Amino acid sequence: MSPQALVFDAYGTLYDVHSVVRRCDEFWPGKGAALSQLWRAKQLEYTWQRSLMRRYVPFSQVTREALAYACEALKFALDGATEDALMQEYLKLAAYPDVPGAQARFKLKQAILSNGSPDMLEPLVRHSGLRFDAVLSVDELKVYKPAPEVYQLAVDRLGVAKEAVAFVSSNCWDALGAKAFGFTVFWIDRAKAPVDRLGLRPDRIVGGLDEVLL
Amino acid sequence: MSPQALVFDAYGTLYDVHSVVRRCDEFWPGKGAALSQLWRAKQLEYTWQRSLMRRYVPFSQVTREALAYACEALKFALDGATEDALMQEYLKLAAYPDVPGAQARFKLKQAILSNGSPDMLEPLVRHSGLRFDAVLSVDELKVYKPAPEVYQLAVDRLGVAKEAVAFVSSNCWDALGAKAFGFTVFWIDRAKAPVDRLGLRPDRIVGGLDEVLL
Repeated sequence: MSPQALVFDAYGTLYDVHSVVRRCDEFWPGKGAALSQLWRAKQLEYTWQRSLMRRYVPFSQVTREALAYACEALKFALDGATEDALMQEYLKLAAYPDVPGAQARFKLKQAILSNGSPDMLEPLVRHSGLRFDAVLSVDELKVYKPAPEVYQLAVDRLGVAKEAVAFVSSNCWDALGAKAFGFTVFWIDRAKAPVDRLGLRPDRIVGGLDEVLL
Repeated sequence: MSPQALVFDAYGTLYDVHSVVRRCDEFWPGKGAALSQLWRAKQLEYTWQRSLMRRYVPFSQVTREALAYACEALKFALDGATEDALMQEYLKLAAYPDVPGAQARFKLKQAILSNGSPDMLEPLVRHSGLRFDAVLSVDELKVYKPAPEVYQLAVDRLGVAKEAVAFVSSNCWDALGAKAFGFTVFWIDRAKAPVDRLGLRPDRIVGGLDEVLL
């Protein structure tokens, strides 16, 4: 079946999560990369662990809690003002430079399907100026990726068969979760990492959104 | 309710996962710690991701797949013989030195509740010489920690109320999964790490099994 909708992951795929590095570096010179990396790793872990524990909280809270953990682990003092400043940074992440040109070229419905809660996702999309036919959040399901009901949400809300969805993510485990569900999957290997060993392969491995050809 | 059963996590709690470092170091001198760390991190990630994807495979397979990923990421060539040798190491992990003395002191039912599949867990326990009233594996449930049904398995198989179970883990997220379920929880903070920010606190934070007092 030829693709009728293009569904994007947001964080790390369209928007560069590590653009917070600069801001972290202002507070802890030379250590922004280490903080940003641990913050991101814990943020993801907490989404998986909370989903399995059935103790969902919105991504904004997970992100704040992961920041607190990362700062304590690295022995950085984190006051309320610094925490707020770093959380604000998440609302204005930079889009990757390959995104706007690629978007203009696609002649399909385009949607975001993200872990982000609406309080983070909506300001981010608005600030970036990028346009989508739908911005879908796991928040209404109270479970995070890669649970299959997350990918089903795109099918339900876009009104297209799963076989007609092309899904794009730079998070390999997310791409493979979507593949297991039944989407056609493009993995953007921005970090030149190996394919995750989860018993599946992406349909295509590309270097950027500009290499996604339909 | 006073405790009637003591339930232990296995990997990292009773048995030192990083005792594989030495063996890794034999194959890749000076790089054993880096490999062991990435291997362990991916092993855990895959348990969470596969549980959410509902694509369970036994822990022995997850462990093998995580090793393959870690070697590829670090650009280490991994042949079949080396892979087998490292996997064999998991069957004879060293117990932490505080374990046997503490076990002798406890006057309760003692059980293991582990992610490990029986093909890994049974040889490990046998090799270590440690004795337990029950060795329980998530394998019969086809889902990994911290899903609540895992902790329920201990209740069902030991025949004790959840309020009468004391649970011990060095993995904070596992301790908090057990706490969310309703156990009394001891977190062994072997790595001197912060408490994970999952909305709960362990009942006690201890430095080793010898500090678990009931």
